[in-house]
Amino acid sequence: MTDLTFYTNPQSRGQIIRWMLEEVGVPYETEILTYGGSMTAEPYKSINPMMKVPAIRHRGTVVTEVAAICAYLADAFPEAGLAPALTDRADYYRFLFFASGPLEMTFSLKAIQYDPPADKQAMFGHGSEARTFAALETMLTGRDYACGDRFTAADLYVASQLGFMMTFGMIEGTPLLKAYVARCTDREAYRRAKQIDTEAAEAMKTDAS
Amino acid sequence: MTDLTFYTNPQSRGQIIRWMLEEVGVPYETEILTYGGSMTAEPYKSINPMMKVPAIRHRGTVVTEVAAICAYLADAFPEAGLAPALTDRADYYRFLFFASGPLEMTFSLKAIQYDPPADKQAMFGHGSEARTFAALETMLTGRDYACGDRFTAADLYVASQLGFMMTFGMIEGTPLLKAYVARCTDREAYRRAKQIDTEAAEAMKTDAS
Ligand SMILES: N[C@@H](CCC(=O)N[C@@H](CS)C(=O)NCC(=O)O)C(=O)O
Ligand SMILES: N[C@@H](CCC(=O)N[C@@H](CS)C(=O)NCC(=O)O)C(=O)O
Repeated sequence: MTDLTFYTNPQSRGQIIRWMLEEVGVPYETEILTYGGSMTAEPYKSINPMMKVPAIRHRGTVVTEVAAICAYLADAFPEAGLAPALTDRADYYRFLFFASGPLEMTFSLKAIQYDPPADKQAMFGHGSEARTFAALETMLTGRDYACGDRFTAADLYVASQLGFMMTFGMIEGTPLLKAYVARCTDREAYRRAKQIDTEAAEAMKTDAS
Repeated sequence: MTDLTFYTNPQSRGQIIRWMLEEVGVPYETEILTYGGSMTAEPYKSINPMMKVPAIRHRGTVVTEVAAICAYLADAFPEAGLAPALTDRADYYRFLFFASGPLEMTFSLKAIQYDPPADKQAMFGHGSEARTFAALETMLTGRDYACGDRFTAADLYVASQLGFMMTFGMIEGTPLLKAYVARCTDREAYRRAKQIDTEAAEAMKTDAS
């Protein structure tokens, strides 16, 4: 028994938290939820009333939303060095919330191939896909990572989202964004996480057949 | 001259940051940007490449995205007591990112009256409007504020968004959510902020006529 439980499905945004947990390097237990199955029923419904993965429970407290879990784990395990000091969080928060807001909106809207036309962009928090990616490109120009020269949980989240969108062919990705994703994912913890989730997904296929 | 500049339009999500600044209680300068005018041109375009308000500049560093600015100011001015200790941020981050992600998505999609049908909800980070509000209701049940019995920057952000949606008639609001918004906004700083922005909006009308 550990005091950290990870609720996920290997084929979900939970992969981001798997990576985060492997970065943090503390023991944790994994509970796999199934789409349209255990994800939508008790006891999970009380853990995340959104009936979505991922979620974590740490020392009895639940955290949901990928970005919140990243920020929480970075603070809860400062030894991992994934969050800047409290007095130096301008870029850190800027990128984390840019990713949970505008970038996530772009990602979600891909499901219906909708991109706001000029007269709707003021109302949409991300404006449009072009504005979001142009802004991200500008924000990352001249720096290796969100906070400058040091990898943080903000990069883990931003690079994961970009990586998903590129892998699924939702965006082409500019040279700068591709180089950023490659830089961020060139880490032992990323490779370990990837392998664990790939094996977990394989095991689920075998179980189902 | 102060070391804190606030870029806004009085009729925008900038009202949330006005409230936050009034809570923090330090001196700041305000720069008003106009929609389709100074907001989309230099020098503001370099401050926020999204060409959206609000933004702040503090000690030379820019922060954009409402939720990021709230989180940043709460950490930068700990005297205001608007953020919990680093070791106790599960609920704080959960609510902040719930609001920047799912709640903001619900808000934005109102612009096109779109609510994901069952077969699209897995892809949308917020699922649907009903799932988002049901989850929020559950998350707030049995507590006065996001973090329990103490008002934080997370409440300021969540209550502001809910307040906008109720004021604009976008959502009806349940008794619990209405009581929550009323509780959060019953503060001197909120009233001060409201008055400043109302007067600024009036002044802009007079200038324009
Ligand atoms: N995700 C942004 C949203 C900001 C936003 O959409 N601001 C609106 C005003 S409420 C805006 O500046 N619209 C002008 C435009 O998009 O052209 C945030 O949280 O700060
Ligand atoms: N805003 C959420 C999004 C989570 C999410 O949409 N998860 C998907 C998998 S990637 C899910 O659980 N979908 C199942 C469903 O909506 O029924 C977060 O950041 O955690």
